[in-house]
Amino acid sequence: MSIIVQKYGGSSLANPDLIRNVAKRIASTSDDSNQVVATVSAMGDSTDNLLDIASKITRLPNPRELDVLLSTGELQSCALVCMALQELGKNAVSLSGAQAGILTDSTFGNAKISNLSTDRIQMELNQGNIVVVAGFQGVTDGLDITTLGRGASDLTAVALAAGLNAERCEIYTDVEGIFTADPRLVPNAHKMDEIGFEEMLEMASYGAKMNPRSIELGMVFNVPILVSSSMNETSGTLIHEVNNMDMKVGEIRNRVRGIATERDVAKIIVYSVVDRPGIASSLFEPLAQADISVDVIVQNSSVEGKTDLTFTVKQSQLDRATSVVKKVADELGSGQIGIDENLGKVSVVGTGMQDSPGYAAKMFKTLATSGINIEMITTSEIRITCIVKVSDLGKAASALHDAFEMDFN
Amino acid sequence: MSIIVQKYGGSSLANPDLIRNVAKRIASTSDDSNQVVATVSAMGDSTDNLLDIASKITRLPNPRELDVLLSTGELQSCALVCMALQELGKNAVSLSGAQAGILTDSTFGNAKISNLSTDRIQMELNQGNIVVVAGFQGVTDGLDITTLGRGASDLTAVALAAGLNAERCEIYTDVEGIFTADPRLVPNAHKMDEIGFEEMLEMASYGAKMNPRSIELGMVFNVPILVSSSMNETSGTLIHEVNNMDMKVGEIRNRVRGIATERDVAKIIVYSVVDRPGIASSLFEPLAQADISVDVIVQNSSVEGKTDLTFTVKQSQLDRATSVVKKVADELGSGQIGIDENLGKVSVVGTGMQDSPGYAAKMFKTLATSGINIEMITTSEIRITCIVKVSDLGKAASALHDAFEMDFN
Repeated sequence: MSIIVQKYGGSSLANPDLIRNVAKRIASTSDDSNQVVATVSAMGDSTDNLLDIASKITRLPNPRELDVLLSTGELQSCALVCMALQELGKNAVSLSGAQAGILTDSTFGNAKISNLSTDRIQMELNQGNIVVVAGFQGVTDGLDITTLGRGASDLTAVALAAGLNAERCEIYTDVEGIFTADPRLVPNAHKMDEIGFEEMLEMASYGAKMNPRSIELGMVFNVPILVSSSMNETSGTLIHEVNNMDMKVGEIRNRVRGIATERDVAKIIVYSVVDRPGIASSLFEPLAQADISVDVIVQNSSVEGKTDLTFTVKQSQLDRATSVVKKVADELGSGQIGIDENLGKVSVVGTGMQDSPGYAAKMFKTLATSGINIEMITTSEIRITCIVKVSDLGKAASALHDAFEMDFN
Repeated sequence: MSIIVQKYGGSSLANPDLIRNVAKRIASTSDDSNQVVATVSAMGDSTDNLLDIASKITRLPNPRELDVLLSTGELQSCALVCMALQELGKNAVSLSGAQAGILTDSTFGNAKISNLSTDRIQMELNQGNIVVVAGFQGVTDGLDITTLGRGASDLTAVALAAGLNAERCEIYTDVEGIFTADPRLVPNAHKMDEIGFEEMLEMASYGAKMNPRSIELGMVFNVPILVSSSMNETSGTLIHEVNNMDMKVGEIRNRVRGIATERDVAKIIVYSVVDRPGIASSLFEPLAQADISVDVIVQNSSVEGKTDLTFTVKQSQLDRATSVVKKVADELGSGQIGIDENLGKVSVVGTGMQDSPGYAAKMFKTLATSGINIEMITTSEIRITCIVKVSDLGKAASALHDAFEMDFN
């Protein structure tokens, strides 16, 4: 018997018909050779509806209570999916995060899984049950309900797959898999059949819809993750450890695997900062304390002991970030702050680019030829990212998709 | 420090404004001399909405899964009430039935409380928190979520009050208290200031809105229960152990305390049943197995070894009951079954009636004078009940309210 873990997102569970459809898929996977553990998200936009009610009661909901509130959406889904499975004649049992043994720290709203005790799940599987687990949630040592952050039902699924030694983890969603680029921006973007964990990690962090922590977890525990549509029978994209032979084929074919894009980027420039040790932390510590995520950071070379520090934040956090920066700017020896809104991020991603020169140059040249100005550049070993005007994002992604011949990937 | 347990029903929590209103009431009760534990029902008609979704997935929802589904409504309420309390600057913490230590058997949908462990609640109170507990739910030894039956948030409240040795249990609802009769049927019905447990038990079983198990529990543990409106500042009705002096005053004033009414009654008559030992159980055991509640049962005197058995069920269960009875009728020596639909039940209730003759006669005479035919009669020590046509129910209740001079009660 092998264990298959499946995860169904909220859009796949938005109404009774879709719930019945999900139950059929789960039921068809459960047979003589496969035991199934399914994790589910909250139905459709029910999480947003709960947030809306909370916002009418308080501007700053207490994180512990918000977790109690939001965790109910997944509980409802898993009870309903079980009912639909039972209607199909299958034995099924729903488990909350607590019942499923998902222990976490007490960082309400963004808890980390500290331990996974799969005894109850194993017992239910051994009794012939399909197990449906409420995604996105866990429980502390003190029996308080926690949530793992938005989109973290993926994380629940991969963690369960790792803990249960599952054959694979299947993530069902409303898209057919991982695409070479966002199809809304790049019309000839196409679905990939497979992608390596590290590449997917860069794609996920940079725009493609999947919880990055779940990819990391899959990578660490080597759990193959299949991302696929719950609406049709297409084959999806397998995220897995790409072995050497695949790598070599990849090298021959193409080293760029995908173009990742992201909107909602704003840039803050702190001019003429005194260039001395500790200057970066004087700036970024207060931002972290204010819970503002800083993304790309660039520091120019020092001229006469002064440097410019540039970094990006989410557009929605720009006002708060600016007010934090203004407070510390004097201390940094700078009074001048510049702001640039309405930016986007475009990245080329691929493990094949590692140690292979020329990719960055080709990217910059492609953007230049398309008349797109590059605002900032940052790179990792398997990714090159440019910040451009958000209005240029589609043109940039399409041009790069063409330049790196991803049509034929 | 004394502990006050409060319970707020779903209609008192139907929207964010009402939730804020409830939080204000809880906050105003919590002061230097009172610790408050509040239990809450699901918001407005959210339980019905969940049942509706479930009914679109399966005709017969699995009881365990239905309990998981329905228990979420109360969790949402208690998180939202805590947020509203925190917005008012109060320290508050929400607890699920499981967290609150409400252990039950595993009769899903109608679980019985088997044990109450108040350690967590006491700890939270000692830390200065207002504790808001999800009503209507508990947890089994095996950590499965159970619900205690509809309307059982009252039960949660009284059980907590008993377990915490609370000074009193306050039930807030959308009515001002317990009335001498249903005001929709008897225009000059009026709110009572107090009522005894036993009387309330008869009123509750016979129509007045309050979970009868919660009254029993209050009676056993002698927890005074105040039923009051969450919408205004009226004084409500205190349900408590009426002491002898009160009783004497009651006797002087009036022995009938209330007129209880109930709709949705149907009658089944099994004619010419062989009158031998065990005959009743041959009939009522199969009904119990089919989960049909039989209410009033009347057996006529035997004539020539034959008797007629008459009993009432809820109108909504009539079809199922009839088919069960038809199956066993032959065995009982009877082929003939009669049915009477659209009946109602009217009762006069009062401990003062005990050992005092004349009340029954006065009741029957009053109904006769009003031209109302009595279909069945049944009595307990403190109650006399007549089954009448449902169309006569209002006239009957009003006539009895007048006859027993309850205007001046």
